Amino acid sequence: MIVVMAHKASEIEIDRVLVKLKEAGFQIHLSQGVERTVIGAIGDKTRLRDLALEAMQGVEKVVPILQPYKLVSSAYMDGPTVVKVGDLEIGGDTIHVMAGPCAVESREQLLESAEIVRRSGATLLRGGAFKPRTSPYSFQGLEQKGLEFLAEAREKTGLRIVTEVLDPRFLELVAEYADVLQIGARNMQNFFLLREVARAGKPILLKRGPSSTIEEWLLAAEYILAEGNRDVILCERGIRTFEDYTRNTLDLTAVPVVKYLSHLPVIVDPSHAIGKWRFVEPMARAAIAAGADGLMVEVHPHPEEALCDGPQSLNGDNFNLLMTKLHDVAGVMGRKLGNRS
Amino acid sequence: MIVVMAHKASEIEIDRVLVKLKEAGFQIHLSQGVERTVIGAIGDKTRLRDLALEAMQGVEKVVPILQPYKLVSSAYMDGPTVVKVGDLEIGGDTIHVMAGPCAVESREQLLESAEIVRRSGATLLRGGAFKPRTSPYSFQGLEQKGLEFLAEAREKTGLRIVTEVLDPRFLELVAEYADVLQIGARNMQNFFLLREVARAGKPILLKRGPSSTIEEWLLAAEYILAEGNRDVILCERGIRTFEDYTRNTLDLTAVPVVKYLSHLPVIVDPSHAIGKWRFVEPMARAAIAAGADGLMVEVHPHPEEALCDGPQSLNGDNFNLLMTKLHDVAGVMGRKLGNRS
Amino acid sequence: MIVVMAHKASEIEIDRVLVKLKEAGFQIHLSQGVERTVIGAIGDKTRLRDLALEAMQGVEKVVPILQPYKLVSSAYMDGPTVVKVGDLEIGGDTIHVMAGPCAVESREQLLESAEIVRRSGATLLRGGAFKPRTSPYSFQGLEQKGLEFLAEAREKTGLRIVTEVLDPRFLELVAEYADVLQIGARNMQNFFLLREVARAGKPILLKRGPSSTIEEWLLAAEYILAEGNRDVILCERGIRTFEDYTRNTLDLTAVPVVKYLSHLPVIVDPSHAIGKWRFVEPMARAAIAAGADGLMVEVHPHPEEALCDGPQSLNGDNFNLLMTKLHDVAGVMGRKLGNRS
Amino acid sequence: MIVVMAHKASEIEIDRVLVKLKEAGFQIHLSQGVERTVIGAIGDKTRLRDLALEAMQGVEKVVPILQPYKLVSSAYMDGPTVVKVGDLEIGGDTIHVMAGPCAVESREQLLESAEIVRRSGATLLRGGAFKPRTSPYSFQGLEQKGLEFLAEAREKTGLRIVTEVLDPRFLELVAEYADVLQIGARNMQNFFLLREVARAGKPILLKRGPSSTIEEWLLAAEYILAEGNRDVILCERGIRTFEDYTRNTLDLTAVPVVKYLSHLPVIVDPSHAIGKWRFVEPMARAAIAAGADGLMVEVHPHPEEALCDGPQSLNGDNFNLLMTKLHDVAGVMGRKLGNRS
Repeated sequence: MIVVMAHKASEIEIDRVLVKLKEAGFQIHLSQGVERTVIGAIGDKTRLRDLALEAMQGVEKVVPILQPYKLVSSAYMDGPTVVKVGDLEIGGDTIHVMAGPCAVESREQLLESAEIVRRSGATLLRGGAFKPRTSPYSFQGLEQKGLEFLAEAREKTGLRIVTEVLDPRFLELVAEYADVLQIGARNMQNFFLLREVARAGKPILLKRGPSSTIEEWLLAAEYILAEGNRDVILCERGIRTFEDYTRNTLDLTAVPVVKYLSHLPVIVDPSHAIGKWRFVEPMARAAIAAGADGLMVEVHPHPEEALCDGPQSLNGDNFNLLMTKLHDVAGVMGRKLGNRS
Repeated sequence: MIVVMAHKASEIEIDRVLVKLKEAGFQIHLSQGVERTVIGAIGDKTRLRDLALEAMQGVEKVVPILQPYKLVSSAYMDGPTVVKVGDLEIGGDTIHVMAGPCAVESREQLLESAEIVRRSGATLLRGGAFKPRTSPYSFQGLEQKGLEFLAEAREKTGLRIVTEVLDPRFLELVAEYADVLQIGARNMQNFFLLREVARAGKPILLKRGPSSTIEEWLLAAEYILAEGNRDVILCERGIRTFEDYTRNTLDLTAVPVVKYLSHLPVIVDPSHAIGKWRFVEPMARAAIAAGADGLMVEVHPHPEEALCDGPQSLNGDNFNLLMTKLHDVAGVMGRKLGNRS
Repeated sequence: MIVVMAHKASEIEIDRVLVKLKEAGFQIHLSQGVERTVIGAIGDKTRLRDLALEAMQGVEKVVPILQPYKLVSSAYMDGPTVVKVGDLEIGGDTIHVMAGPCAVESREQLLESAEIVRRSGATLLRGGAFKPRTSPYSFQGLEQKGLEFLAEAREKTGLRIVTEVLDPRFLELVAEYADVLQIGARNMQNFFLLREVARAGKPILLKRGPSSTIEEWLLAAEYILAEGNRDVILCERGIRTFEDYTRNTLDLTAVPVVKYLSHLPVIVDPSHAIGKWRFVEPMARAAIAAGADGLMVEVHPHPEEALCDGPQSLNGDNFNLLMTKLHDVAGVMGRKLGNRS
Repeated sequence: MIVVMAHKASEIEIDRVLVKLKEAGFQIHLSQGVERTVIGAIGDKTRLRDLALEAMQGVEKVVPILQPYKLVSSAYMDGPTVVKVGDLEIGGDTIHVMAGPCAVESREQLLESAEIVRRSGATLLRGGAFKPRTSPYSFQGLEQKGLEFLAEAREKTGLRIVTEVLDPRFLELVAEYADVLQIGARNMQNFFLLREVARAGKPILLKRGPSSTIEEWLLAAEYILAEGNRDVILCERGIRTFEDYTRNTLDLTAVPVVKYLSHLPVIVDPSHAIGKWRFVEPMARAAIAAGADGLMVEVHPHPEEALCDGPQSLNGDNFNLLMTKLHDVAGVMGRKLGNRS
């Protein structure tokens, strides 16, 4: 950390900062230039945020030098983490596609979706049993019934189940049915939830919050790893910007950046990011070309009847076409695509 | 709602949209121009989001005409809502200031803060007992002990207590101590939490999410009103933008906009928005001049020792100066400032 | 266009809007609901912006239905536009890569860059002779000398030249040397410049402004087409967001969106968008997979000695590797990559 | 400047950075921690951007410590700069309001506007003679004729004239008529224009670009001061964010921040920032309360007939009301409002 003192900081103000840093166990390098005094401090980076140095008289600004996370950092591990979901390996040579409807609406809808998803070579089924909706007047999910349909679909198709935990009180229930527990974008910084879901001992899919930097996203993952659960799959799903033709702006560059900064696998959800099914296919291809370890795609047998997010859902034919193209792009990247042959 | 059909939409595609709208009970106006067919639909606006019209073949886009909320809309009420907190009226002639430390750190720190706050004319005491922190290595709050200290401070000073409900499982506990239940920015779209906190029957302070539009913020308030609780105080606390000199960008224009669109009172939290105490005073003045009904300000007896958000906290002297200036600005606006005389 | 009247708009206010629209030659559809009066108006969409309807008493808001551009719209042409640059076709089956240094620094540097670029299969050479720099203390370009070196490099390598016109007074000079005239991101809405460059009768590369929506970008292109010049190549180069690990956020979804809304070819500049050479390769691959018609990439023989944008420049070896990978991705997309075989 | 080396940077990579810094005349502090080597470099901050250190092998990142500007910095001057426009002093005790129509449309419209503006106590008349419009189908300005009307209005009312220089070729012409030369938001980083306008020797109003940070804005002002022209008035006019109820997001916090970082005066343009006249009054009040030295407000005698920006223009009555309220707020701030008594 670097502490830049103000232009006219006094001797006493500088001394107070030095004392505080030393008391906190930091090693100090003092550099007094013509314009400013600059203090370098080396020590436990996880403690910096609590020192409140910027509140001290005479301090101009504090510049962190190292990343504030540790366990998720690529420097912490030799090589990438591979997350196992049953016999599937996420983050390895095979690219896995998680597909299915936004919400579980009925037994028929879900089983039909699962069949479409399986047939095209995807390996995980997604579907929401509890739905957080922007409007209180929208469909809110089938809850436990939805989870049971998901389990039945797994039974019938062999697909693994990814579903969201919205509230810590449903955790036990959801964990009973799901293979991967999803933390939604809106909950990325719900730290109570992160900790408890971490302790459930299942792989976790951590969506990036729409106004979160990559660093904050990795810090959220750090919460999970700090609880002893290393099976975290990161999921880029768009950030909020001024561009309003698409629902959010898909930040695909986050894929190679996360792979550089961290050892965790990262997948991409183009459906939620974009909000229009027409652009899901090209951006799914682009995600694989950027190096993503997988995709999450909304598929619905009849998007125009969907109770949730129909406009961004692919129907069966479009999804099958998508998987054909992804298969080829995966090949160029030296990878395999799920069960697609 | 207006449905704009694609340039080359077929007769059949247009008919299917018409049928779907009619089945859903909408009244239809068809307008066939040279370039496009445009369909106007009048009916229950709260059902629009679930129709998934944009997923239908031949539909170019759907343009909502009316606001998607109802109970929070200014058209729904004659005149502004005044929220009562004990004998305080928020949204009336008096501007109320909620002040105190980011986190309750100890009995001494809180009682000292409360005394500073009271003496300067503020009427509510803020302080977090449970703290959601970006880093897992930061201080996380005193929990129940913190609530007890808050109650003791109320006893001693007569200040009303505002504190955050972070998790529905703590709701009962927090509601036992607090006069106003705060929903934090990160939970603005945690709809389960919104509903349950609404049912606790206490006034609610609803912070705007850092990546939420004003419309989404009002929709979140609609969740609370839809549960029968009308005592909602909105709080602007900055949105996330590319400007990084300040922590967030305080969107003060949201104050007159909310007052135009809704009947609910709105206050401003410049401390969290800006993140640097130096700029809190001018922006607090500006908030009052923009028409805010109150302020939330971080005050700490010793900001440089604060365990949380020290850099944005005012000390006692600065807070007292702030209140003097606010008193004058309130006067120009034809309003009174808390207990400041 | 739809005009939504305020909740309590009077008869007279509604009549005034109707009269104004009729006088302007619009055809009217009036729809009086319980909550609001809504007026639909059909007519010359290019005149809407000048009507100032939102300034009229009783008008709540004006909602445009159709896109405000015409000549760049995909509905205006049958099939995509192919822009010819000498014998190269941009927007056709072949993907073209424009590469070279940020700034022309010296004859040696440019000729060496050109040789690297040619050898790897790129077909156009980029390089700035005039440089707009954020700081007045940075290198500002070789001006005419730089243009002469570019012409010499074309002579020696057969590469076509792309270079920026920063100021209308240099237009004639730059047009004498360049094969493609570039409008930089900061000038995207410099409408005087757009018009004059359009009249020079050469192909134009139009970069997206960092705070421009896709619609505004297409409107800027409309200025050029409205002058009779149809040879416009659009270039996505990142938008400004809160994410600060990368210089800007590359909005790759803009590629398929532009291809859907317009007939113009679109290329991607990952170097400027990202600002770090390490992530240029994966995002260049992703751009091709998303459907881009070409790329603009910064290449420098010795990035660590570059006078401008060294951190985002690839050296010769890395550029050659990049082109190898792009060749494969282009193949999967059913396309060819420049002169790469 | 701090250079952070990568986790596994080699001795040779570190040495190369040290050599480069020393050759460039920097003084070095080397600090080798367990995790990283960190290099501090002290020297001419204006040369840092050109060193391209981030392009060197083994360099993780470069962290600037000092601001990249110098002449505009508050450390460079004792006390604030007061810019004289005729006998008006901008940045002193008196708050000056610049008001008038977006575009000069006709002699009558302009003289009527000027009369409204003068009568309410404003001291400068604004009006565009050349208009940059997003759409090529919009009104583009009266050009020289417009300038003549502005001069006539000055003659008749004593108001000083502010008008925009859009293109360097019009500079001489515009400078002949204007008292203050405006650089529009879209041209904030048009560095050729900045330099030449600076040399015209007149006061300059520099609008903030809608996607510019405060630092970039100050760097643009640095270009002007570096040419020897110190009469720069900064103007905040909103930044682009995801919020779309208002045209841009007015960043009022920029006012106290600029006053802290720089000695230059700063004014606020709420009309362009917001785009809706209804919210101009509260935000104008807020700007003064935040410490702004003046305002720029759009006023039109008949907003509903305006050829440009009617929806954000105040009519005469509303402008007069605004000035009454501003007078009171100015009083609380210990300042006077233009010619308002």
